[in-house]
Amino acid sequence: MDFDFIRPLIKPAKTKIVLLVLDGLGGLPREKDKFTELEAATTPHLDELAAEGICGLQQPIGTGITPGSGPGHLSLFGYDPLKYQVGRGVLSALGVEFDLYPEDVAARGNFCTLDNEGYVVDRRAGRISTNKNEELCKILSKIEVPGVDVFVKTVKEHRLLLVLRGEDLSDKVNDTDPQEIGKKPLTPKALSSQAGRTASLVQQFLGQTHELLANHHPANMVILRGFAQKPKWPSMEDVFGLQSAAIAAYPMYRGLAKLIGMQVLDTGETVAEEFSTLEKNWDSFDFFYMHVKKIDSAGEDGDFDRKVSVIEEVDREIPRLQNLNPDVVIVTGDHSTPSSLKYHSWHPVPVLLWSKQCRTDTVKHFEERACMTGGLGPRFPAVDLMPLALANALRLEKFGA
Amino acid sequence: MDFDFIRPLIKPAKTKIVLLVLDGLGGLPREKDKFTELEAATTPHLDELAAEGICGLQQPIGTGITPGSGPGHLSLFGYDPLKYQVGRGVLSALGVEFDLYPEDVAARGNFCTLDNEGYVVDRRAGRISTNKNEELCKILSKIEVPGVDVFVKTVKEHRLLLVLRGEDLSDKVNDTDPQEIGKKPLTPKALSSQAGRTASLVQQFLGQTHELLANHHPANMVILRGFAQKPKWPSMEDVFGLQSAAIAAYPMYRGLAKLIGMQVLDTGETVAEEFSTLEKNWDSFDFFYMHVKKIDSAGEDGDFDRKVSVIEEVDREIPRLQNLNPDVVIVTGDHSTPSSLKYHSWHPVPVLLWSKQCRTDTVKHFEERACMTGGLGPRFPAVDLMPLALANALRLEKFGA
Repeated sequence: MDFDFIRPLIKPAKTKIVLLVLDGLGGLPREKDKFTELEAATTPHLDELAAEGICGLQQPIGTGITPGSGPGHLSLFGYDPLKYQVGRGVLSALGVEFDLYPEDVAARGNFCTLDNEGYVVDRRAGRISTNKNEELCKILSKIEVPGVDVFVKTVKEHRLLLVLRGEDLSDKVNDTDPQEIGKKPLTPKALSSQAGRTASLVQQFLGQTHELLANHHPANMVILRGFAQKPKWPSMEDVFGLQSAAIAAYPMYRGLAKLIGMQVLDTGETVAEEFSTLEKNWDSFDFFYMHVKKIDSAGEDGDFDRKVSVIEEVDREIPRLQNLNPDVVIVTGDHSTPSSLKYHSWHPVPVLLWSKQCRTDTVKHFEERACMTGGLGPRFPAVDLMPLALANALRLEKFGA
Repeated sequence: MDFDFIRPLIKPAKTKIVLLVLDGLGGLPREKDKFTELEAATTPHLDELAAEGICGLQQPIGTGITPGSGPGHLSLFGYDPLKYQVGRGVLSALGVEFDLYPEDVAARGNFCTLDNEGYVVDRRAGRISTNKNEELCKILSKIEVPGVDVFVKTVKEHRLLLVLRGEDLSDKVNDTDPQEIGKKPLTPKALSSQAGRTASLVQQFLGQTHELLANHHPANMVILRGFAQKPKWPSMEDVFGLQSAAIAAYPMYRGLAKLIGMQVLDTGETVAEEFSTLEKNWDSFDFFYMHVKKIDSAGEDGDFDRKVSVIEEVDREIPRLQNLNPDVVIVTGDHSTPSSLKYHSWHPVPVLLWSKQCRTDTVKHFEERACMTGGLGPRFPAVDLMPLALANALRLEKFGA
C-alpha cells in the first residue's frame, strides 16, 4: 500500500480497532481425521465473530513465500514488507530489548569454532548453553575500541548481539560469517565509501575477540552477519492517524511495534494477562496490537494438541474483548506454522474481520477450509487489512469527488 | 514475479516437480447439458489428484486477456509474460525447429499477391498449399546477399521463415507487411542507428525475391514482419535452481523450453509415449514440463467430443505419473480453447496442484466450475504457480527473519 495515497484519506473518529495476532495460526491437516489445528479446536467465540464478520485467507508476502516474523507482522500493520525490511542485526536487538540509538550499528553474532589454522569447523560452536554464552559475553564486554562504545549481549545458545555506538557509523559492512564450514571467517570490509571506519572498528573488535576466546574452545571465535541500523520509518500515527498500543509478551514483537511508533504496554506472560492489559488501557488508544506467541511455539515443536489447546485458551478470552465493545476486530496470524512441518510455512493464514458494517459472508467457523470460501477471498494480501480496518472504523474519507 | 526477489530464497532439495500442460484445456458449456469438455470427460485419476490437492482457475496474462501460446507458457514457467516477450520471427523459427544462433535475425514472412502496379491485393497469396510454398522456398534459397547467410524455410500454407546469419545484425527493422490490401509493401528501414546494414540486407533480399517470383502469381512477392533475435533470458536453473526437462511432441513447445534452458527430451507423438519418456528420464531431472497438444487442436477444430476423448486419454496415463512418486504435480493449460469458440480464449484455466503439504481444499472434481471454489481462487495469476510449486517442493527459504 502506498502511504501517500492513504494519508490524505484519513479522518478522525472515536472508533477502536483490535488486531489480534495469533502467531503461526495457520496449519495443515493431521493424518487421523484430516483436521487442521484450527479445525480441531473448539472455538465458539471465534466462530461467533467469524459468523458475524467477513473471513478469508491472507498472504503476508506473496504466493508460495514463507514469511519471517518481521515481514509477516509489518504487512499486517499495513507496511509493504518488501519496502520496509528490518536488518538481522536490528531484529536481534529487538529480540533482547536492547534500546538502539539512531546511529548505532547492530549485528547478529554466532560463537563458532575455529581449528588451529583458523578455519571454521562449527558455525555454532556446538550450540553452547545460554549460560556459557553469558559467561563469554561478560569476557567480550571488556573489549575497548577507541571512539565507540561496544555492547555484547547474549541472545540464546550460540547467538549474540553486537552493537557499536558512536558517530559516523555505517551498516554497509559485509558479513564475516562465511556461511559454510571449511572456510576462514571473512574480513569485515566497507561496502560503501562511508563505511571504512566502521569496518575497521569491527575488525579491531574481532581481533581482540580472537585473543580473548583463544582458550575457550569450542567457542573460540565470533562470526557476524546482518549489520544494520535502526530504520527511520513513518509511525502508525503519521500514516493512519492512530494512537496505537502493543500488548506482547515477547521482546521481539514489542521491539517491532516500537519501530512504527506504537506504545508498548506492560503485560504478563499469559493470554489472560494480555487481555487484562487490554481492558486496563482500553480508553487510552485507538488501535491495539495483541500478540500471542505460544501458538507458533507449539507448531514449531510439532505439538498439534498443544497448538489446539492454546487456540482454545485464546477463544475463552474473546468475550472479554467483546465486552469492551470494539468497533473493529481482526483475528489472524503473521504466518502459518503447521505442526506437521514444525516451521513457518507459505500457506495462507486464516483471517476474520468483524465490525458492525463489514458485509457478512457465509463462513460460520473460523477454520482454514471455511475461510477459503469467505468474502475476503483465499489469497487476500495482508497489507490490505489496515485500509479495510480503517474503513470499517469509519476513519477513511472517500477517494475523489 | 521478480527474479531478484526469489533467487536468494532458493534452496536445494531432492524433490521432483511435474508440470503437465494440457494445451487449451479450459472450455465452455455445450448446449445439450451445459457441460464443458472437462465436465463431460470421465477423469477419475485427475479427480483423485484434485481431491487430494488444491485447485483453482488461473489466468496466464490477466483478466479478459486471451494468451498466445508463447506468453501462456512463459507465465506457467514463472516468467512475467509482459517482460519476457518472444518476437514473432523467433516464434516462427521455434515452430519449424530452426536452430537460431545468438546473432541471427529472424522474420515471419507471407507469400502475397501484388498487382501490376505493385499494390498488395492478397496478403496470403490465396493461401497457397504447403507444397507450393516448399517449391517457392527452394527458389528463394538461391538468393545470395553479400556478407550474410540467408535461410528461407517453409512454415505452412502461405507462411515462411526468413533468417539472416552474420555479424553485427540487428532486429530493429520495421515490418514490410503493410497489414492491409491496396497498399504497397513497405521499405525495410532501420529503427535504430545499429540497424542500417540489416535493413539494407533485407532490402537486397526482397529485391531478388521480387525478380525470382515475378512469374509465380498469385505468390509473386513476400512481405515480412516481426524481425527478432533470440532473447537472452535467465534459465530455469539460474532463477529456480532446477534441472529441467521438456517432453513435448510439437516443435514450438520444445523451442520455447530451450529458450529458458530446459533440456528437450526425445519423445513420440502420443500421450502414452510422452509418459514413457517421463519414466525413462525420471532420475535425471528435478522439473519436468510435459505438453499435450491434441486437446487444443480438438478445441480449435470445434470438436467437443474429440476434446473430451483426448482429456480422457491423458487421464488414463496419470497413474503412471503417480507411480513415480513425484513431490509436486501441477495440471493445467496454457489457455482455454472452448470448442464452441474454436480458438484460444480469455477464460481462466483449471489448475490443480498436488503435493503432500498443499492444504487440501473442498474440490473433488477437476472441472471448471468446481475449481471456481478452490483454494487457489478463481483468478489465480499463472506466474505464481512456480513459487508455489517450489514452496511445496520445500525448495524456498523463508523471507526475512
